[in-house]
Amino acid sequence: MLENMSVKYPITKYSDGEFTVVEDVIVNEFPLTIFVNDLEFATMVCTPTHFEEMVVGFLASEGVIRSYSDIDSIQINEDRGYAYVKLKVEMTTSQEYYSKRFIGSCCGKSRQFYFHNDARTAKTSTSTTTISASQCIKLMNEMQNSSLVFQETGGVHNAALCTSGEMVAVRTDIGRHNALDKLLGYSKINKVPVRDKIIVFSGRISSEVLLKAAKIGVGIVLSKSAPTDLAIKLANDLNITAVGFIRGNSFNVYSCPERIIG
Amino acid sequence: MLENMSVKYPITKYSDGEFTVVEDVIVNEFPLTIFVNDLEFATMVCTPTHFEEMVVGFLASEGVIRSYSDIDSIQINEDRGYAYVKLKVEMTTSQEYYSKRFIGSCCGKSRQFYFHNDARTAKTSTSTTTISASQCIKLMNEMQNSSLVFQETGGVHNAALCTSGEMVAVRTDIGRHNALDKLLGYSKINKVPVRDKIIVFSGRISSEVLLKAAKIGVGIVLSKSAPTDLAIKLANDLNITAVGFIRGNSFNVYSCPERIIG
Repeated sequence: MLENMSVKYPITKYSDGEFTVVEDVIVNEFPLTIFVNDLEFATMVCTPTHFEEMVVGFLASEGVIRSYSDIDSIQINEDRGYAYVKLKVEMTTSQEYYSKRFIGSCCGKSRQFYFHNDARTAKTSTSTTTISASQCIKLMNEMQNSSLVFQETGGVHNAALCTSGEMVAVRTDIGRHNALDKLLGYSKINKVPVRDKIIVFSGRISSEVLLKAAKIGVGIVLSKSAPTDLAIKLANDLNITAVGFIRGNSFNVYSCPERIIG
Repeated sequence: MLENMSVKYPITKYSDGEFTVVEDVIVNEFPLTIFVNDLEFATMVCTPTHFEEMVVGFLASEGVIRSYSDIDSIQINEDRGYAYVKLKVEMTTSQEYYSKRFIGSCCGKSRQFYFHNDARTAKTSTSTTTISASQCIKLMNEMQNSSLVFQETGGVHNAALCTSGEMVAVRTDIGRHNALDKLLGYSKINKVPVRDKIIVFSGRISSEVLLKAAKIGVGIVLSKSAPTDLAIKLANDLNITAVGFIRGNSFNVYSCPERIIG
């Protein structure tokens, strides 16, 4: 599917006082609108690969499905940019909560900010998996070296599902959440156990990224970039180890450092 | 407001085989839920500065208001993370179209993909403003040098509203769209003419970024990073000049190059 990720375009290049017309490689951005039981549910603007995984991952992330077997059929129309999903059951009330804030009714101190559907689907990690410092660095290098599109266009995020020893699946997208939804869909479709797995990610650890990792079900997130304070709070709340700035021979551990061993 | 953009955190640092606990600067991420005429409208996860500008810009972007004078009052509750907006008029039907795809009923060829609210608010540019190649490079350097938070945390986007000679306003946010919404709000609140202005942006030119520039009303977008193919199509459709990869003494022009002069 690599050929779908980028296209060639004629552009005007300026360099040291001269304009020239050259051919450049541009990353693709594709709108996919998801219908669930004939109702328009959401439109994702994405890198056009692994559509089924992305749709399954997104619906799991939003609490519409719990497992792949909740889906009766998925039809992808690539020409028109539509995905038609039939569920075996009625759609629950997830859509009315889509992007709606979850306002805790109890003390309000123990849980950080969540959206409604996040509060339903993000799980506190019980993972006992550990990883060595040198493996953290090795996995990040392996994932980044595996992505041709990034090297060509500089415009995409990479996410990988890994064991503490090797990569299981790598997905690429212009949207950070889409790359992670593709991994979530991959794990649902292939019934891959996730509690012992690790997410390796090229971009910043925002609250959204941290919550997606919790929804996938991993206990460790490794990133090349910085986390936000809200992501660190959520990581502590959900018992997830957040590691950032993996560069050269160093990195930072922002939460639950006991899973990283010397 | 700079003190709101980042916080200090104790972290575990790994470097060359040693773990040490050190203090690090972490970028803030703050959820702000917007109520319009007492109805929950949307939650923005943002860098907590310029709340009023961001709310005004977002509501203008979504077609809820056309001008600042459509708003009767805005109250920001920073402790709880809520913004309460009262309009002088009834809310139009924008919310039902929020994140819904616009499906053109005519030939379907002339216009690219839009969301409903984008199709209502993104304007085709009639700007006759031009900018010299050396000014493109100078404005990008000025904006990047102005941002302390980026230098400290590596985790935010900068956006500036500029004339072809100088910066008018710079805004910073962890969300690319928020930084641009703050500029849109700034222009609405201060009644700044925009047709002759330029947007300078630190991040990638995605379709969302290009559409926000069209909603602000500028004819030129300058970026440090790559565009997507959908953004280039939209830029041609909306007659906007998209410039990317402004680095050192060179850059690329992806659409409407006639506004960049030698």
